[in-house]
Amino acid sequence: MTLRIAVGVSSFADSDATPMKMLEESGVEIIPNPYSRRMTEEEIIRHIDGIDGLLAGLEPLNRKVLKSASSLRAVARVGIGLDNVDLDTAHELNILVSNTPDGPTEAVAEMCLASLLTLSRRIVDFNTDFHSGIWKKHIGTGLRGTRVLLIGYGRIGRKFGEMLRFFGAEIMVYDPFISSDSLTKSEERVALEEGIARAEVISLHASGNETILNKEVIGKMQKGVILLNSARGDLINENALIDALESGRIDSVWLDVFWKEPYNGRLLEFSNVLLTPHVSTYTLQCRLSMEVAAVKNLLRDLELDN
Amino acid sequence: MTLRIAVGVSSFADSDATPMKMLEESGVEIIPNPYSRRMTEEEIIRHIDGIDGLLAGLEPLNRKVLKSASSLRAVARVGIGLDNVDLDTAHELNILVSNTPDGPTEAVAEMCLASLLTLSRRIVDFNTDFHSGIWKKHIGTGLRGTRVLLIGYGRIGRKFGEMLRFFGAEIMVYDPFISSDSLTKSEERVALEEGIARAEVISLHASGNETILNKEVIGKMQKGVILLNSARGDLINENALIDALESGRIDSVWLDVFWKEPYNGRLLEFSNVLLTPHVSTYTLQCRLSMEVAAVKNLLRDLELDN
Repeated sequence: MTLRIAVGVSSFADSDATPMKMLEESGVEIIPNPYSRRMTEEEIIRHIDGIDGLLAGLEPLNRKVLKSASSLRAVARVGIGLDNVDLDTAHELNILVSNTPDGPTEAVAEMCLASLLTLSRRIVDFNTDFHSGIWKKHIGTGLRGTRVLLIGYGRIGRKFGEMLRFFGAEIMVYDPFISSDSLTKSEERVALEEGIARAEVISLHASGNETILNKEVIGKMQKGVILLNSARGDLINENALIDALESGRIDSVWLDVFWKEPYNGRLLEFSNVLLTPHVSTYTLQCRLSMEVAAVKNLLRDLELDN
Repeated sequence: MTLRIAVGVSSFADSDATPMKMLEESGVEIIPNPYSRRMTEEEIIRHIDGIDGLLAGLEPLNRKVLKSASSLRAVARVGIGLDNVDLDTAHELNILVSNTPDGPTEAVAEMCLASLLTLSRRIVDFNTDFHSGIWKKHIGTGLRGTRVLLIGYGRIGRKFGEMLRFFGAEIMVYDPFISSDSLTKSEERVALEEGIARAEVISLHASGNETILNKEVIGKMQKGVILLNSARGDLINENALIDALESGRIDSVWLDVFWKEPYNGRLLEFSNVLLTPHVSTYTLQCRLSMEVAAVKNLLRDLELDN
């Protein structure tokens, strides 16, 4: 019997056919997402009726949806987050759930580096001035010798640290969940307070939603620090950040994640706040690598990976 | 007898005292630049009267100036370019002239990478939209697997190539002055036409002022290419570039050098043209490294480097 696989993600194999070919070669029947957008509860219920496996996006895979899909045996998320999947119900119904935790690492770390360089070399300022007819030079800062504090040292923090070391930056790591043994000589483990006090650049890569950079912690930063957040909006207190930008303690900040998305708050008024709309994983390479990984996971869970 | 050294550059040892300390420890007398800007012919003539060595910026060191400085024995440029120095006259008068060819390499290559990432990850577009209240995601391109043509493979081209390879890009090299023997397996030597036809990113690092990217050559580029120029404005034909931006053949371009500087021409109208005012070397690290190198050159040429 031919197994049937539904595509839930709104775009799949759009720029590179590799993941689609992998599915075809495994002999399954493929049912594409007919909407090219995120499906509603009603739509996904109809879409996965009689389906064996789902390549899932962010559509709601709640108890009602999962219980309606009587033949569903495997859900493979194209991405990391599983907030849209009722894992308890999936477990109860013997539906195998997988995600692609490695896919975004390189794309996010590369975006962190891109944003740091954009700020430290003042590229947006130069470009804005220049397009207004102002030819004005300022001195910037290169990466060599720059002291960077990485808060959180999982996959993305480590990858970003590796890139920074390649450019000669000095890395400090704050992560209560790792041991010093797992660090090399060029990665200095620090207490939060010490790292905050010494860093010229601070980058957030922590999990969880607890605020780390509150008013008190921000008050201990060096004047003129550059701050980067690609992890979670709630890791920073918004009002404390605004105060520190107004006082000049924080020279500039890049934010890709926010307290509420889409964000439309006070930080839009600051020209030294570099804003991107949660797009750190938005590269063709990242998409392809996550799609390929999700297809592999799905074929494995449906025992088609022989 | 104490030797006297004049500082011609407009800023010297401003952010890091190391080069000034090196001079002091060598026992010379130091005469700073009193204007904190580039000196005129009359000013530099007065400034180097009775001087043994000069740390030179871009002030005019023409025949008249050099002949007026009867005790001058060494000119050390803080920088690469020697266009402001009459080398024939210096030779005739036995004045030793040096420059700092290695100083800017890392700063320029880092700026090339910064600008490429800014364009490929669409950072300026996202930031501009976001600050106008528009939350809109687009897919960008990471560096892995991207085919980059480097036109000119001297110090800066090689350093930029090294950075790109670290991020997984594929490097093609066009440089008529190097032999294939000097390239590794990961650096593919190509003819200009072949490289132009295959490249997704093209970066200029050639010397000279001959136009390389004229209308015909630009016409052979892939649609959607990203172009970078940190070398010389005249390497590109301005009108041909404008046509290619209008037709979409060139997706976006970063320019740090221009046909006439300050530049205030038609390219200011294009939002997909990233413009910086000839600042690729403008980092604290680059300035320090060039100042230290120039001081070493000067002390060597005055035989004070014992």
